[in-house]
Amino acid sequence: MPEYSDLEKAISTLVSQFHSASADNSATLKPDEFKGLVSSGLPNLVKGIGTDQGLSEILRKMGVGDGEGISFKHFWNLIQSLASSQHGILSSQKGCHCNCILM
Amino acid sequence: MPEYSDLEKAISTLVSQFHSASADNSATLKPDEFKGLVSSGLPNLVKGIGTDQGLSEILRKMGVGDGEGISFKHFWNLIQSLASSQHGILSSQKGCHCNCILM
Repeated sequence: MPEYSDLEKAISTLVSQFHSASADNSATLKPDEFKGLVSSGLPNLVKGIGTDQGLSEILRKMGVGDGEGISFKHFWNLIQSLASSQHGILSSQKGCHCNCILM
Repeated sequence: MPEYSDLEKAISTLVSQFHSASADNSATLKPDEFKGLVSSGLPNLVKGIGTDQGLSEILRKMGVGDGEGISFKHFWNLIQSLASSQHGILSSQKGCHCNCILM
Protein backbone atom coordinates (compact mmCIF):
# COMPACT_ATOMS: atom_id res chain seq x y z
CA MET A 1 0.00 0.00 0.00
CA PRO A 2 1.37 3.42 -0.86
CA GLU A 3 1.66 6.08 1.81
CA TYR A 4 -1.07 8.67 1.31
CA SER A 5 -0.61 12.39 1.90
CA ASP A 6 -3.00 14.65 3.80
CA LEU A 7 -4.43 15.94 0.54
CA GLU A 8 -5.03 12.45 -0.80
CA LYS A 9 -6.61 11.37 2.47
CA ALA A 10 -8.89 14.40 2.29
CA ILE A 11 -10.16 13.40 -1.17
CA SER A 12 -10.58 9.83 -0.02
CA THR A 13 -12.57 10.97 3.05
CA LEU A 14 -15.00 12.92 0.88
CA VAL A 15 -15.61 9.93 -1.37
CA SER A 16 -15.80 7.24 1.29
CA GLN A 17 -18.10 9.17 3.62
CA PHE A 18 -20.58 9.60 0.81
CA HIS A 19 -20.46 5.88 0.10
CA SER A 20 -20.77 4.79 3.69
CA ALA A 21 -23.89 6.92 4.13
CA SER A 22 -25.88 4.54 1.95
CA ALA A 23 -27.41 1.79 4.06
CA ASP A 24 -28.07 -0.51 1.10
CA ASN A 25 -24.84 0.31 -0.73
CA SER A 26 -26.73 2.16 -3.44
CA ALA A 27 -25.21 4.65 -5.90
CA THR A 28 -27.47 7.43 -4.65
CA LEU A 29 -28.61 8.46 -1.19
CA LYS A 30 -32.16 8.76 0.04
CA PRO A 31 -33.04 12.12 1.60
CA ASP A 32 -32.84 10.66 5.13
CA GLU A 33 -29.43 9.15 4.46
CA PHE A 34 -28.21 12.45 3.08
CA LYS A 35 -29.61 14.27 6.09
CA GLY A 36 -27.72 11.89 8.38
CA LEU A 37 -24.49 12.41 6.44
CA VAL A 38 -24.73 16.19 6.60
CA SER A 39 -25.90 16.31 10.23
CA SER A 40 -23.02 14.19 11.45
CA GLY A 41 -20.44 15.11 8.82
CA LEU A 42 -20.94 18.83 8.27
CA PRO A 43 -22.47 20.14 11.52
CA ASN A 44 -20.54 23.42 11.47
CA LEU A 45 -20.64 24.15 7.75
CA VAL A 46 -24.24 23.35 6.84
CA LYS A 47 -27.01 24.72 9.01
CA GLY A 48 -30.74 24.26 8.88
CA ILE A 49 -30.93 20.74 7.52
CA GLY A 50 -32.91 19.66 10.59
CA THR A 51 -36.17 21.00 9.19
CA ASP A 52 -37.98 19.72 6.11
CA GLN A 53 -37.86 23.20 4.63
CA GLY A 54 -34.12 23.51 5.25
CA LEU A 55 -33.47 20.11 3.71
CA SER A 56 -35.55 20.93 0.62
CA GLU A 57 -33.71 24.21 0.15
CA ILE A 58 -30.31 22.54 0.37
CA LEU A 59 -31.31 19.77 -2.04
CA ARG A 60 -32.65 22.34 -4.48
CA LYS A 61 -29.37 24.29 -4.43
CA MET A 62 -27.49 21.04 -5.03
CA GLY A 63 -29.55 20.46 -8.16
CA VAL A 64 -31.56 17.52 -6.84
CA GLY A 65 -34.96 17.18 -8.52
CA ASP A 66 -38.15 16.22 -6.69
CA GLY A 67 -38.09 12.57 -5.67
CA GLU A 68 -34.63 12.09 -7.13
CA GLY A 69 -31.86 10.23 -5.27
CA ILE A 70 -28.81 12.24 -4.22
CA SER A 71 -25.83 11.33 -6.38
CA PHE A 72 -22.15 11.89 -5.69
CA LYS A 73 -22.27 14.70 -8.24
CA HIS A 74 -25.01 16.44 -6.24
CA PHE A 75 -23.00 15.96 -3.05
CA TRP A 76 -19.95 17.33 -4.81
CA ASN A 77 -21.84 20.53 -5.68
CA LEU A 78 -22.34 21.06 -1.97
CA ILE A 79 -18.69 20.33 -1.12
CA GLN A 80 -17.57 22.69 -3.87
CA SER A 81 -19.71 25.52 -2.54
CA LEU A 82 -18.40 24.96 1.00
CA ALA A 83 -14.80 24.88 -0.18
CA SER A 84 -15.35 28.01 -2.28
CA SER A 85 -16.81 29.80 0.74
CA GLN A 86 -13.89 28.79 2.91
CA HIS A 87 -11.50 29.81 0.20
CA GLY A 88 -13.29 33.13 -0.14
CA ILE A 89 -12.96 33.81 3.59
CA LEU A 90 -9.27 32.93 3.58
CA SER A 91 -8.49 34.98 0.51
CA SER A 92 -10.77 37.96 0.96
CA GLN A 93 -7.75 40.01 1.94
CA LYS A 94 -5.92 38.92 -1.16
CA GLY A 95 -7.98 40.49 -3.88
CA CYS A 96 -9.28 37.10 -5.02
CA HIS A 97 -12.95 37.17 -5.87
CA CYS A 98 -14.42 33.75 -5.40
CA ASN A 99 -17.78 32.30 -6.14
CA CYS A 100 -18.89 32.22 -2.51
CA ILE A 101 -22.54 31.40 -2.90
CA LEU A 102 -24.09 28.01 -2.51
CA MET A 103 -24.27 26.68 -6.03
CA MET B 1 -13.53 26.68 18.71
CA PRO B 2 -16.09 24.17 17.43
CA GLU B 3 -15.11 20.54 17.07
CA TYR B 4 -14.68 19.71 13.39
CA SER B 5 -15.67 16.41 11.82
CA ASP B 6 -13.54 14.37 9.44
CA LEU B 7 -15.52 15.67 6.50
CA GLU B 8 -15.06 19.29 7.56
CA LYS B 9 -11.37 18.74 8.17
CA ALA B 10 -11.08 17.24 4.69
CA ILE B 11 -12.57 20.36 3.07
CA SER B 12 -10.37 22.56 5.19
CA THR B 13 -7.27 20.57 4.18
CA LEU B 14 -8.04 21.07 0.49
CA VAL B 15 -8.42 24.81 0.93
CA SER B 16 -5.50 25.42 3.27
CA GLN B 17 -3.01 23.35 1.30
CA PHE B 18 -3.75 25.36 -1.80
CA HIS B 19 -3.18 28.57 0.15
CA SER B 20 -0.01 27.48 1.83
CA ALA B 21 1.53 26.57 -1.53
CA SER B 22 1.83 30.24 -2.43
CA ALA B 23 5.15 31.63 -1.24
CA ASP B 24 4.04 35.25 -1.49
CA ASN B 25 0.51 34.67 -0.23
CA SER B 26 -0.96 35.38 -3.64
CA ALA B 27 -4.44 34.39 -4.81
CA THR B 28 -3.02 32.29 -7.62
CA LEU B 29 -0.10 29.90 -7.81
CA LYS B 30 2.84 30.07 -10.15
CA PRO B 31 3.49 26.88 -12.18
CA ASP B 32 6.43 25.94 -9.94
CA GLU B 33 4.37 26.40 -6.79
CA PHE B 34 1.59 24.28 -8.24
CA LYS B 35 4.09 21.63 -9.25
CA GLY B 36 5.42 21.55 -5.68
CA LEU B 37 1.90 21.26 -4.27
CA VAL B 38 0.98 18.35 -6.54
CA SER B 39 4.34 16.57 -6.19
CA SER B 40 4.17 16.58 -2.40
CA GLY B 41 0.39 16.58 -1.98
CA LEU B 42 -0.86 14.21 -4.64
CA PRO B 43 2.06 11.86 -5.35
CA ASN B 44 -0.15 8.79 -5.82
CA LEU B 45 -3.08 10.36 -7.63
CA VAL B 46 -1.35 12.62 -10.15
CA LYS B 47 1.48 11.21 -12.22
CA GLY B 48 3.75 12.77 -14.78
CA ILE B 49 3.95 16.30 -13.43
CA GLY B 50 7.73 15.99 -13.16
CA THR B 51 8.24 16.78 -16.83
CA ASP B 52 7.42 20.08 -18.56
CA GLN B 53 5.17 18.24 -20.97
CA GLY B 54 3.31 16.47 -18.17
CA LEU B 55 2.84 19.74 -16.29
CA SER B 56 1.53 21.51 -19.40
CA GLU B 57 -0.93 18.72 -20.06
CA ILE B 58 -2.29 18.79 -16.50
CA LEU B 59 -2.62 22.59 -16.55
CA ARG B 60 -4.43 22.44 -19.87
CA LYS B 61 -6.93 19.91 -18.54
CA MET B 62 -7.51 22.12 -15.50
CA GLY B 63 -8.41 24.98 -17.83
CA VAL B 64 -5.33 27.11 -17.18
CA GLY B 65 -4.44 29.36 -20.09
CA ASP B 66 -0.89 30.07 -21.26
CA GLY B 67 0.97 32.24 -18.76
CA GLU B 68 -2.04 32.36 -16.46
CA GLY B 69 -1.73 31.87 -12.68
CA ILE B 70 -3.38 28.79 -11.19
CA SER B 71 -6.50 29.76 -9.23
CA PHE B 72 -8.36 27.83 -6.59
CA LYS B 73 -11.04 27.15 -9.18
CA HIS B 74 -8.46 25.55 -11.48
CA PHE B 75 -7.14 23.49 -8.58
CA TRP B 76 -10.69 22.48 -7.74
CA ASN B 77 -11.20 21.13 -11.27
CA LEU B 78 -8.31 18.77 -10.60
CA ILE B 79 -9.63 17.72 -7.18
CA GLN B 80 -13.06 17.10 -8.66
CA SER B 81 -11.69 14.88 -11.37
CA LEU B 82 -9.66 12.89 -8.84
CA ALA B 83 -12.66 12.51 -6.53
CA SER B 84 -14.86 11.46 -9.47
CA SER B 85 -12.31 8.85 -10.48
CA GLN B 86 -12.12 7.47 -6.95
CA HIS B 87 -15.85 7.49 -6.72
CA GLY B 88 -16.11 5.72 -10.05
CA ILE B 89 -13.72 3.00 -8.87
CA LEU B 90 -15.64 2.53 -5.64
CA SER B 91 -19.02 2.45 -7.30
CA SER B 92 -18.23 0.60 -10.52
CA GLN B 93 -19.86 -2.49 -9.05
CA LYS B 94 -22.94 -0.51 -8.16
CA GLY B 95 -24.21 0.38 -11.59
CA CYS B 96 -23.29 4.03 -11.07
CA HIS B 97 -21.76 5.57 -14.15
CA CYS B 98 -19.52 8.42 -13.13
CA ASN B 99 -17.65 10.99 -15.10
CA CYS B 100 -14.24 9.44 -14.59
CA ILE B 101 -12.18 11.49 -17.00
CA LEU B 102 -9.95 14.40 -16.09
CA MET B 103 -12.12 17.44 -16.75
